[in-house]
Amino acid sequence: MADSKIIKSKYFFEEDFTEELAEVSANKYADWNKKELKVVGKPVSRVDGYDKVSGSAVFTFDVILPNMAHAKTLRCPHPHAKIKRINTKKAEKIPGVLGILTYENAPKISWYGKSFLFDPHLRYEGDEVAFVAAENERIAEQALKLIEVDYEILPFVTDAAEAMKKDAPKLYDDGNIRGGKPSVYERGDIDKGFEEASAVAEQTYKTQVEIHNPTEPHCSVVNWDGDYLTIWDSTQGVFSVRDRVADVLKLPASRVRVIKKYMGGAFGAKLEAGKYTVMAALLARKIGRPVRIALDRREMNLSVGNRPDSVQKLKGGATKDGRLTALYQYSYGAAGAHPAGAGCSWALRTMYLCPNVKTEEYTVYINAGRARPFRAPGHVQGFFALEALIDELAEKIGMDPLEFRIKNHTDRDQVFDAPYTSKLLLDAYRVAAEAIGWKNRPQPAGSDAGPLKRGIGMSSQIWWGGGGPPAYATLKLNRDGSVRIIAGSQDIGTGTYTILAQVASEVLEIPMEKVEVLLGDTAVAPYCGSSGGSTTAPSVSPAVRDAAEQMKAKLLSGAAAHLNVSESQLVYRNGVIHTKGKNKKSMTIREIARKMGERVLVTTGKREANPDGYAINSFGVQFAEVEVDTETGKVSVKKIVAAYDIGRVLNPKTLENQIHGGIIQGLGFALFEERIIDRNTGKVLTTNLHDYKLPTVKDTPQIDIRIVSKGDSKISNTGVKGVGEPAMIPTPAAIGNAVYNAIGKRIKSLPITPDKVLTALQS
Amino acid sequence: MADSKIIKSKYFFEEDFTEELAEVSANKYADWNKKELKVVGKPVSRVDGYDKVSGSAVFTFDVILPNMAHAKTLRCPHPHAKIKRINTKKAEKIPGVLGILTYENAPKISWYGKSFLFDPHLRYEGDEVAFVAAENERIAEQALKLIEVDYEILPFVTDAAEAMKKDAPKLYDDGNIRGGKPSVYERGDIDKGFEEASAVAEQTYKTQVEIHNPTEPHCSVVNWDGDYLTIWDSTQGVFSVRDRVADVLKLPASRVRVIKKYMGGAFGAKLEAGKYTVMAALLARKIGRPVRIALDRREMNLSVGNRPDSVQKLKGGATKDGRLTALYQYSYGAAGAHPAGAGCSWALRTMYLCPNVKTEEYTVYINAGRARPFRAPGHVQGFFALEALIDELAEKIGMDPLEFRIKNHTDRDQVFDAPYTSKLLLDAYRVAAEAIGWKNRPQPAGSDAGPLKRGIGMSSQIWWGGGGPPAYATLKLNRDGSVRIIAGSQDIGTGTYTILAQVASEVLEIPMEKVEVLLGDTAVAPYCGSSGGSTTAPSVSPAVRDAAEQMKAKLLSGAAAHLNVSESQLVYRNGVIHTKGKNKKSMTIREIARKMGERVLVTTGKREANPDGYAINSFGVQFAEVEVDTETGKVSVKKIVAAYDIGRVLNPKTLENQIHGGIIQGLGFALFEERIIDRNTGKVLTTNLHDYKLPTVKDTPQIDIRIVSKGDSKISNTGVKGVGEPAMIPTPAAIGNAVYNAIGKRIKSLPITPDKVLTALQS
Repeated sequence: MADSKIIKSKYFFEEDFTEELAEVSANKYADWNKKELKVVGKPVSRVDGYDKVSGSAVFTFDVILPNMAHAKTLRCPHPHAKIKRINTKKAEKIPGVLGILTYENAPKISWYGKSFLFDPHLRYEGDEVAFVAAENERIAEQALKLIEVDYEILPFVTDAAEAMKKDAPKLYDDGNIRGGKPSVYERGDIDKGFEEASAVAEQTYKTQVEIHNPTEPHCSVVNWDGDYLTIWDSTQGVFSVRDRVADVLKLPASRVRVIKKYMGGAFGAKLEAGKYTVMAALLARKIGRPVRIALDRREMNLSVGNRPDSVQKLKGGATKDGRLTALYQYSYGAAGAHPAGAGCSWALRTMYLCPNVKTEEYTVYINAGRARPFRAPGHVQGFFALEALIDELAEKIGMDPLEFRIKNHTDRDQVFDAPYTSKLLLDAYRVAAEAIGWKNRPQPAGSDAGPLKRGIGMSSQIWWGGGGPPAYATLKLNRDGSVRIIAGSQDIGTGTYTILAQVASEVLEIPMEKVEVLLGDTAVAPYCGSSGGSTTAPSVSPAVRDAAEQMKAKLLSGAAAHLNVSESQLVYRNGVIHTKGKNKKSMTIREIARKMGERVLVTTGKREANPDGYAINSFGVQFAEVEVDTETGKVSVKKIVAAYDIGRVLNPKTLENQIHGGIIQGLGFALFEERIIDRNTGKVLTTNLHDYKLPTVKDTPQIDIRIVSKGDSKISNTGVKGVGEPAMIPTPAAIGNAVYNAIGKRIKSLPITPDKVLTALQS
Repeated sequence: MADSKIIKSKYFFEEDFTEELAEVSANKYADWNKKELKVVGKPVSRVDGYDKVSGSAVFTFDVILPNMAHAKTLRCPHPHAKIKRINTKKAEKIPGVLGILTYENAPKISWYGKSFLFDPHLRYEGDEVAFVAAENERIAEQALKLIEVDYEILPFVTDAAEAMKKDAPKLYDDGNIRGGKPSVYERGDIDKGFEEASAVAEQTYKTQVEIHNPTEPHCSVVNWDGDYLTIWDSTQGVFSVRDRVADVLKLPASRVRVIKKYMGGAFGAKLEAGKYTVMAALLARKIGRPVRIALDRREMNLSVGNRPDSVQKLKGGATKDGRLTALYQYSYGAAGAHPAGAGCSWALRTMYLCPNVKTEEYTVYINAGRARPFRAPGHVQGFFALEALIDELAEKIGMDPLEFRIKNHTDRDQVFDAPYTSKLLLDAYRVAAEAIGWKNRPQPAGSDAGPLKRGIGMSSQIWWGGGGPPAYATLKLNRDGSVRIIAGSQDIGTGTYTILAQVASEVLEIPMEKVEVLLGDTAVAPYCGSSGGSTTAPSVSPAVRDAAEQMKAKLLSGAAAHLNVSESQLVYRNGVIHTKGKNKKSMTIREIARKMGERVLVTTGKREANPDGYAINSFGVQFAEVEVDTETGKVSVKKIVAAYDIGRVLNPKTLENQIHGGIIQGLGFALFEERIIDRNTGKVLTTNLHDYKLPTVKDTPQIDIRIVSKGDSKISNTGVKGVGEPAMIPTPAAIGNAVYNAIGKRIKSLPITPDKVLTALQS
């Protein structure tokens, strides 16, 4: 179904790009841009495809341990309250209930900086009150109902603007503004910038709270062997969870093993250790049994993170000939009930050449679930506002919006004043504009006849894309030439298992079937960071290449010693080493290993440091074509053209999966998804996937992907830049601009729902 | 109980030993003989003690997988037969039966060289006929009963002497003698040697078949994910099992993962992949479910190995002044129904200085379970005969048996003509003789008044003790200074987890609580060999030290770079690095790691090659004091004094465990254990632990251990030699000689049962 809508992607590797490909720098191995690759860059199917499709893949949700108990969490039904009294006696008496933790019997563990793992001060609907383990989930749920809690109901605030007022109910003694003041950034002279401007645009844009809602719920299974704790966790960062759990439980890190094999998505909501994980560990130790805790959809919508909302007052100035002279942003967003970041100004600071910039951002506490990083945190919101402003400025000076962007293109990072290692955004603009038919868009905006009005809009994007150290990979070569890669990274559904196997297969010239990858196990893997921020492929693939190249060198040196020739006389081909010239002699890996007295050869590779003095970013642009039903207000996205400079493509299939996912998620944010809180009760109204609408295959547009980059030889030996977040960043902005192009009215707050469209049309 | 019998062990580290301690050679790190160690050499309790004592330790026997099926094996009830017809239809119809494999539907996989995994030619009682998987073991057992097999009963032979006759029933077309001829060794001129002798002794000694009977049965749990096979196996060699299974199933080695965490003993019976493991893998793939196969005690006694029996005709010659001039051995032993080693001449070739030696050994097929290596294969049998002969020769020339042994002591390996890296056997003789009260033994033999006649006997021992490469260990240091060691070795119950943790704790000066060891997982560990042959500690502990020393160097170099001083100005103490002198500056591991940009530091250490031109052996002696009841014939062992040169003691507790175990197992072999086959039916009569008597705590003598060695600095950076097998080798011989000393009659065949004693007394 969805496939039929996808236009075959194109990869541009021509030599006529604007930028010369950089010389090798940090990369001590042969530049992959200069040779033909056999496996890397090819559309290899996922190595874990069988497991996933057959159902044999074990997600954390599927882990079963002998004698495992099941846990459920009692959560606060009020947006703001204190526990006056709690009584678990009745609940404890239910047959099958094994143990209950509350703030009265649990250790006092600091959490979120200003509160505790179990805290009698409850700051949002969903805050943890008690944790029950029982023989099964049904019994645990029954027990929750029998726990008696007397709450002191406190006044609440669920809106950031109201929370900023002096007389608002306070979540913390020192007030609702995080740090007590805004975070300010300034360069140049903002007032002078506006003085120089021929045209000024000024608007307030708003974005809503979005919930991550990955497919697999948050889940942990914990097991103690003496003082040794093993945690199977649905997490983006096994080491991050390990270190946090070890810290709060006062265990050596070596005594905590965190394992994650497969995961059904996260989008940022599983970057840190969950309270539920630590609660399960505490209760497992108490009851002497393994404990499984899996959150349900309601809990996921209440308590494990969200993309914070934003109110962004933007002002921009430009000269008549299209130079940006000043950009200003005043914004605030809700962190929720606990410290979290809610900034969204990075887009404005870095996307375009602009000498005078100022941003002021407030992060505000409200009585609602805490914000967490969500696929391109800040950028998705920030670009929606920035790219609308850019369009408005272009219109004011009578310039084509694409031309305006090209005028303000820069090869230097504006904040750090450093050149980019590579930036092929102009090429991306060119190929994408052509593919969408930019020149044929309705002009002026709203001029399509209707009643189904067509419109085309665009948005640029920038994202840190280079990854970096520390990231390591261990490679074990068996005598039969098969290989095991072990890395501390994790495959969160994006294809990490596959791309790392490709890199080893490429270097060692062995078939993919002979490469196995083990990820997500702190006990056995060298360190890698969390899988977030589009860093996994750029960070870990070079470590694998390094390990594989070291292995090849080891084999060559072993063969040279045995054949009594210099290494330069040897050729490595398809996992076999030959001498050059006539009377060829050859050695297989098995033979070399035997001669070296080895059964298994091991190397450890690392991600080298990024080059000094450079900024590394992924760049891209999306063009959206929409159709707005002027009678119902419904917006349909018909097509997205996405063009990217993301360095080397390791695997077109997994790359396209990422871009499709990002676009669909961006579309959901643009049109449907929104956490809604009843202002009168302070309670969340959207706690299931009926009330909180996610996009489905029926909402999916045609997607046309154009890749304009080869490997970025400056950054690493694989030259990969990240794409996970870049895929989503420009979608809402492009759709917003396309809606404007279709109807001639700007919807300045997301999501662009039919009622907002109809209201705008009537204005 | 047992503890109360144990005399506190003594460790001799005085400077008055006969041999100067060797200079450092292969060892590039500081010689541990020259510094005071804090953790290594100390009686540290087992790190897995809690798991074992609490019952939380997961042995292979305990592994449970979701949806796991249970398998049982139909075994041949006849000593020799062919399957004429097999019908599994009735068995397949039982509800809960999931699948059955026989030679008719299983792939033809070569096994034991001359036969197949499923072979219609059945060569012993217990040979595999069919393999059934069912919902539980009870159903599987029911199914076994309903499998109809028509056997063609064939003539059989279960005695090696008979099997060697020309007209004996043949197990293989080319006859019952393995290789068709004896294995012969010769040095010097044996005839000339006997001509030079003043006294010659000549005797035939016999030893019985001993069954390994470890506590935990042989067991595998297998699981397929697509083409990826995971095997939890009760094995001494995870890599050995992996390679064999990958070979026969034609999988890349990387697609087979073998895991063993804890094991309840093996003694050599779990060195190779079992047929049951491969059968379980085949059937698991067929039925699409994990399969567990656990053998029962009867199956263990029939089919998974034994110490082969021996008939040894020995002849020795000596001069009047006590020089051995010639040693000759003619022997044969039964390999069982499939190829296996049954030699036992190494003792005679190497123990004493003797210029003229000849041995002729036959390995014979019989219709019985196949022999396997069993704790000091060959040596236990060989020493029983050799040391009896030595005593007899000493008596013939009227020399004290200990003095006779000292006269024939040698510092050079007699077979390879190379010096030993270390040999402190003379010290062992001295301290042990003193401890047992050698001078006060009854003289002449049989002179004790009785009816409980006391006697003292002795036996020397030699065993390859140095281990060697390839053996690797990976060490991961976490920021909090805690450590993970990963090695491809396995702890088969001997304390490997503990001793490796001690080595890392010693080098890095961190508490034992901060060191975790992971063993027995082919997917994650660098290679180590199987745990057998007393090689684990000598092979793996140096790899761990190397990894830890590399880590220390890495930390020092990191600290030097940050503090801007040379490494020589730094002191590493208790996991913290200080500058020397006044104004001390210091850095913790966490600080160094942060400055180095690391979260986890990794090193891989290796076992260096053993020094060229040397022989490496462990040496020891045991003196046994027995009491023989001349009325009942019962032999009670009252005391064993064991003195050893085994290089460095890593942990006195685990060392003593090993020696106690070896002595008790040797005592069982000397007095009780024997597989008995009914010669008329060819069926084994001793298939349970009632009929096959193992020694218990009530049979356990006082054990007095004396260690006369420090680290052997020539062989490795830890200087450890093996003790697992040396602990058992001399016990039966010492007991045999003690019985002679008590009653003046020699029992020349093991076990020394009351009936044999009474018969001897009556002769």
